[in-house]
Amino acid sequence: MSQAQAPTAAGTDPAASEQDAYRKKLAADLEDFLGRQREVLEDVSEESVPLLGAVHSLAKGGKRMRALLNYWGWRGAGGDVLGAPAVRSGVALELFQSAALIHDDIIDRSDTRRGAPSVHRHFANRHAEAAWFLDGSHFGSSAAILAGDLCLALSEEAFTSVGDRAGYATRARALFNRMRTEVMAGQYLDILEEVVGPGHEPERAVVRARNILRYKSAKYSIEHPLAIGGALAGASDELLAAYSAFSLPLGEAFQLRDDVLGVFGDPEVTGKPAGDDLREGKRTVMIAYALSAASDAARREITAGLGRPDLGDDAVASLRQIIKESGALATTEALIAEHTEQAFSTLAELAVDEQTRSALKSLAHAAVTRTA
Amino acid sequence: MSQAQAPTAAGTDPAASEQDAYRKKLAADLEDFLGRQREVLEDVSEESVPLLGAVHSLAKGGKRMRALLNYWGWRGAGGDVLGAPAVRSGVALELFQSAALIHDDIIDRSDTRRGAPSVHRHFANRHAEAAWFLDGSHFGSSAAILAGDLCLALSEEAFTSVGDRAGYATRARALFNRMRTEVMAGQYLDILEEVVGPGHEPERAVVRARNILRYKSAKYSIEHPLAIGGALAGASDELLAAYSAFSLPLGEAFQLRDDVLGVFGDPEVTGKPAGDDLREGKRTVMIAYALSAASDAARREITAGLGRPDLGDDAVASLRQIIKESGALATTEALIAEHTEQAFSTLAELAVDEQTRSALKSLAHAAVTRTA
Repeated sequence: MSQAQAPTAAGTDPAASEQDAYRKKLAADLEDFLGRQREVLEDVSEESVPLLGAVHSLAKGGKRMRALLNYWGWRGAGGDVLGAPAVRSGVALELFQSAALIHDDIIDRSDTRRGAPSVHRHFANRHAEAAWFLDGSHFGSSAAILAGDLCLALSEEAFTSVGDRAGYATRARALFNRMRTEVMAGQYLDILEEVVGPGHEPERAVVRARNILRYKSAKYSIEHPLAIGGALAGASDELLAAYSAFSLPLGEAFQLRDDVLGVFGDPEVTGKPAGDDLREGKRTVMIAYALSAASDAARREITAGLGRPDLGDDAVASLRQIIKESGALATTEALIAEHTEQAFSTLAELAVDEQTRSALKSLAHAAVTRTA
Repeated sequence: MSQAQAPTAAGTDPAASEQDAYRKKLAADLEDFLGRQREVLEDVSEESVPLLGAVHSLAKGGKRMRALLNYWGWRGAGGDVLGAPAVRSGVALELFQSAALIHDDIIDRSDTRRGAPSVHRHFANRHAEAAWFLDGSHFGSSAAILAGDLCLALSEEAFTSVGDRAGYATRARALFNRMRTEVMAGQYLDILEEVVGPGHEPERAVVRARNILRYKSAKYSIEHPLAIGGALAGASDELLAAYSAFSLPLGEAFQLRDDVLGVFGDPEVTGKPAGDDLREGKRTVMIAYALSAASDAARREITAGLGRPDLGDDAVASLRQIIKESGALATTEALIAEHTEQAFSTLAELAVDEQTRSALKSLAHAAVTRTA
């Protein structure tokens, strides 16, 4: 699924070749859509254009996992090759993801995103470079709040512009709405867990962490994009249910892999500092396992270190060691393997053409074995 | 237009009586809409419901100016009395306004809204009361970012649920989209002006301040709601142009009045601290006039005081004095009077029935003479 793999595979594998063609149409449609938005901002004032520029820079990157899942959901339900509705809904999903990332990075105090400054850092940097007045960090966050809002509004504008298939009372629209509400609720539970977690029913921590994972990520990143593409192509209830039976465990495995990378990932590959999730105080499923399995002393060290922005490399190394020794890393890997197996066995039986099955298999494989 | 006036006027004036009936339908529809959203959040987790609760508490208050303008825009274009599309679009506009306020209050560091804690303060207070872990102020802002995002998504969900009249490629949808993009661009220009303003082409400060006022407020608060209601009822291009000729100057007068109240308003009536706009560093049209007309010493005092969160009551009183003595208050009042006159003279000729004209007259009067 990574952008480096696709060109190699294309030409030999018809699914990869079609996916490459979709990627190109998606990129062109995103440029076209944002280009017309640029005109609206220019009408307001040339000085407002950098707000869209920040959205544009972020949205043109990324692996396009959500757009691609949406595309194969569409194709698997009989949608035509490179169909315009699946291109435009891909743009909508990628813009929604960009909006979520912009606000997430403020919430998580992340200074980098895809190896570049996050949007709030970008605006704080502009402030510093130009030596503007007042608080540059607050200006950065404020501008990023507005950039995220703009991006969220644009994602919906793109989705509506799919036309009748995404109109009021359609299945696709209902899924799009549910996706938005669920991910915001899931993100709220995530930040709530960070501040409440340490003292709140520790025996239920794993249950809570798995619920958060499901709503803030698994459904929104994997299940909903596939279902939205399918619904746009008029998928039956039966096919949509089969899509979910494949995609929800895949989504859970995907996010569990993300949680492992957030602690054990290589900064050179992830583009984020080592152990970033620890500094952010993320109470992931793996952390919940570690807290329930570690010794008292180790549990105290985890609790004391989590959420400390100034956590040093030695402290990160020590926490990694504890998480490994507690067995939490192995338990998480086992859960990833279990969910992955469930997803692949469902995929093998899925009532879709072989080209779609092949494409979904590649995407699924990349989602759970990735290193960034 | 205030909620206190409406009941008195109803019963004698048919426009006021109809408007009261609309308010009731609007309130009921908002409850119904948010009640169904609550079920979505309950499916995620009971613990996520407070996110919607914060949106609900805010959205059920307010003067409903945008919903009412939308209603009379609808009626003036021949829409039926208490028509469901105008009720639901009113809900969408009020939710959009709530979303903007939630994020604005983070950006402006406003602790109060409508006499109650702002949403980020509300969540920070929950954190403090429950003695949760980590940084309560950051938790408050983060939760409010998510609450605003949810509210923004819900405003669009409500707008789409108006049905075919608000579907893709309709005039109403195009206006709704433009409203969102323009207000976010306008808000960005507003925060940019606060940090760039002091050193940037002072001779153009008034021009910039008037452009910001137009996009961040006048169009979105007054012009667009009236036009959206009209478009939903199938208003002609001619009628929509006439609506704008009335509503844009009215919107400018409305925001200029807001700027005067932000410096000279009575905290008992506005529900916000005295001189709040000065502490927030708002570079309003009135401030731009003051900077261009004041003595060098006075200009330095304004520049030094603007944007200082710790500005005391004496400093506020001194800045008020300077703004008065520079003639900026009088110039602003003259501009309000000029725009108001233009709005009322256009309204007198507007091709709408007399009941709509009467209702718009009351709304316009309240918008420019209000004290809160």
